[in-house]
Amino acid sequence: MTDYPTIRLKPKAEARAIRHGFPWVFADEVVTDRRTRALTAGSFAVLEDSERRALGLVTVNPASKIIGRMMDRNVDAVIDADWISAKLRIALDHRARLYETPYYRLIHAEADGLPGVVIDRFGPAAVIQPNAAWAEAHITLIADALQAVTGVECIVKNGAGRSRVLEGLTEETEVLRGTLDGPMPVLMNGATYMADLLGGQKTGLFFDQRPNHAFAATLAKGARVLDVFSHVGGFSLAALGAGAQSALAVDSSVPALELATRGAQASDMAAQFETRQGDAFAVMEALAAENAQFDLVVCDPPAFAPNKQALDAGLRAYERVAKLAAPLVAPGGYLGLCSCSHAADLSAFRNASARGIGRAGRKAQLIHTGSAGPDHPQLPQLAESGYLKAVYFRLNS
Amino acid sequence: MTDYPTIRLKPKAEARAIRHGFPWVFADEVVTDRRTRALTAGSFAVLEDSERRALGLVTVNPASKIIGRMMDRNVDAVIDADWISAKLRIALDHRARLYETPYYRLIHAEADGLPGVVIDRFGPAAVIQPNAAWAEAHITLIADALQAVTGVECIVKNGAGRSRVLEGLTEETEVLRGTLDGPMPVLMNGATYMADLLGGQKTGLFFDQRPNHAFAATLAKGARVLDVFSHVGGFSLAALGAGAQSALAVDSSVPALELATRGAQASDMAAQFETRQGDAFAVMEALAAENAQFDLVVCDPPAFAPNKQALDAGLRAYERVAKLAAPLVAPGGYLGLCSCSHAADLSAFRNASARGIGRAGRKAQLIHTGSAGPDHPQLPQLAESGYLKAVYFRLNS
Repeated sequence: MTDYPTIRLKPKAEARAIRHGFPWVFADEVVTDRRTRALTAGSFAVLEDSERRALGLVTVNPASKIIGRMMDRNVDAVIDADWISAKLRIALDHRARLYETPYYRLIHAEADGLPGVVIDRFGPAAVIQPNAAWAEAHITLIADALQAVTGVECIVKNGAGRSRVLEGLTEETEVLRGTLDGPMPVLMNGATYMADLLGGQKTGLFFDQRPNHAFAATLAKGARVLDVFSHVGGFSLAALGAGAQSALAVDSSVPALELATRGAQASDMAAQFETRQGDAFAVMEALAAENAQFDLVVCDPPAFAPNKQALDAGLRAYERVAKLAAPLVAPGGYLGLCSCSHAADLSAFRNASARGIGRAGRKAQLIHTGSAGPDHPQLPQLAESGYLKAVYFRLNS
Repeated sequence: MTDYPTIRLKPKAEARAIRHGFPWVFADEVVTDRRTRALTAGSFAVLEDSERRALGLVTVNPASKIIGRMMDRNVDAVIDADWISAKLRIALDHRARLYETPYYRLIHAEADGLPGVVIDRFGPAAVIQPNAAWAEAHITLIADALQAVTGVECIVKNGAGRSRVLEGLTEETEVLRGTLDGPMPVLMNGATYMADLLGGQKTGLFFDQRPNHAFAATLAKGARVLDVFSHVGGFSLAALGAGAQSALAVDSSVPALELATRGAQASDMAAQFETRQGDAFAVMEALAAENAQFDLVVCDPPAFAPNKQALDAGLRAYERVAKLAAPLVAPGGYLGLCSCSHAADLSAFRNASARGIGRAGRKAQLIHTGSAGPDHPQLPQLAESGYLKAVYFRLNS
């Protein structure tokens, strides 16, 4: 028997969802006596229902709204390197089946059995985002297991981002194992991308967009492509890899555009690739004033509606993106619009996009709806929150 | 000036949605005087709002709940071979960009500008489903334009299906142009399918499932595959084409399984392909009794919830499919579940599927959500009704 402390659900709290696989316990659902409040952030405890029946082993963070995250249904589980390795092996089997080369999201948090932990794999390197207190506390165990299971030589801890703030964790990024020699080249969708594992956005590359890049590529042959909010050139380079005539990447970040250009050079596509640095809205207005026309326009903005409070303003921003982008699409051309906002569901985002296109005086067919790739699994119990949506329209007139 | 008759919206009817692109007028929204009731099914009329402002040219069917379908915003449009050819050319440009060989849905009704008309292209042949009265009345015009724009030699009119009944049309299938020499071979996703353009389900092949077949194929290497409700072997043959070890197709239809077997032979995959004829539920129970295990199971049943009245029973049937299929999936294997029910939206279908898997005692990750391919465009204004959903789970334990 292990001697974990216990935390208990209030009488009114709904144990049913947790029994059916919902992985989180909210702070207002548990009896928070002095003992519970004294638990160390990142420690483990047995979760009981109000009648003292054990529900599973959780990790506790009294500083977070998500006070408990389910680690194991077995209350005698020991969270050690073996336990973590077992999760990593199951996750690795799935990715190894899906991808020919080891560049993918290896661990997607709860759905891969490691609550709050994100791990992206870049061949011989990996980036860990420990976005829950237990992972921060056990980062050495996780790095050991990761190295043992995958054989990666370099491990980066990326401690940036909103999720850590909500958990009461500080921002810090460092190389935990091995060394990094500048940006990492990543072969994906027929192009070479340059990923900055230390200073870039998120873990350096947006693996979640891979299938949406690939779909855009199917439309790109011979096309003039505009890639707005381009980051390191996700859509541009995939489109050029599929035979686009030219691509123009627009972003406000100078380092991101430099990486995009280096990617185009590494992909032998530099001659067809251009960048324009600036505010995306302003650049789209300027392009319209120049009567610029493209056969494929893709806009992949940052999350305009990161939470419920920001939803209305966020949807207006998505509508504005669509309204500014539509006039840049040649007749019979295509417009891809993306949202990575949790709070804006697919239907709200699609409607905002269609409204923007309509306000630009264009008629559209919806031809495709995409989401994150299969290396970003979800728990069915959390699937409503599928954050990434991509909607592709054809603008005939 | 043309001299079309007019139909008028009631004062309370919402003209705004129609102005913003909604393509249908329901019978209870128009003033149905003697003159309106006397209009011939399939004739054309100018739609006016309650203040007699013209909204567009519609086709009228007093026998249908959808009394009007928008043909053209220009009330002086003439619906002739040129008008139809223009729609076909726009649709063809899109498909020619997407597909290397001419096998696809060419016209997907309202979204492609030909209300109620479905046309599937099979290389030198095409199948027209005229599911609205105007198309039935003008089938010769449509066939002429189709032949002129695409050069197809054989045209089949397929007059089966629910949609025609709702329009008051009779069931009749015939070869309108050219001749057909048995089932048509169709190369798709690395396999050859046999499509029966005259006697098969729908137009003979489900082009809409092509991206979902392709996704299943990415999981199939070395896998033992079970394809339940297989029709002509959509998932089985794509999986074998991607290197599956074996595939077992289950269907109640003897002719469908015969076509599947002929497809496997034409694809040089007959040695790895088996069929089992019977009720899918009974066969899944029998396979469980035999302790059969597969690495990939896909179930693509007929529409269990074709309308709102059938929704509850339909969702129970989807849950039962998931519950019977899950025990047949080996640990770490995959389960793909499809629904072509309009009435069951993605969230309801996904939840029913997850519930069934849970009731079978299995835990699941949701790894992918698919829909119909880009040759099945939608009007954004009708996108809520996206009928085809495919959800893929990984069953780790």
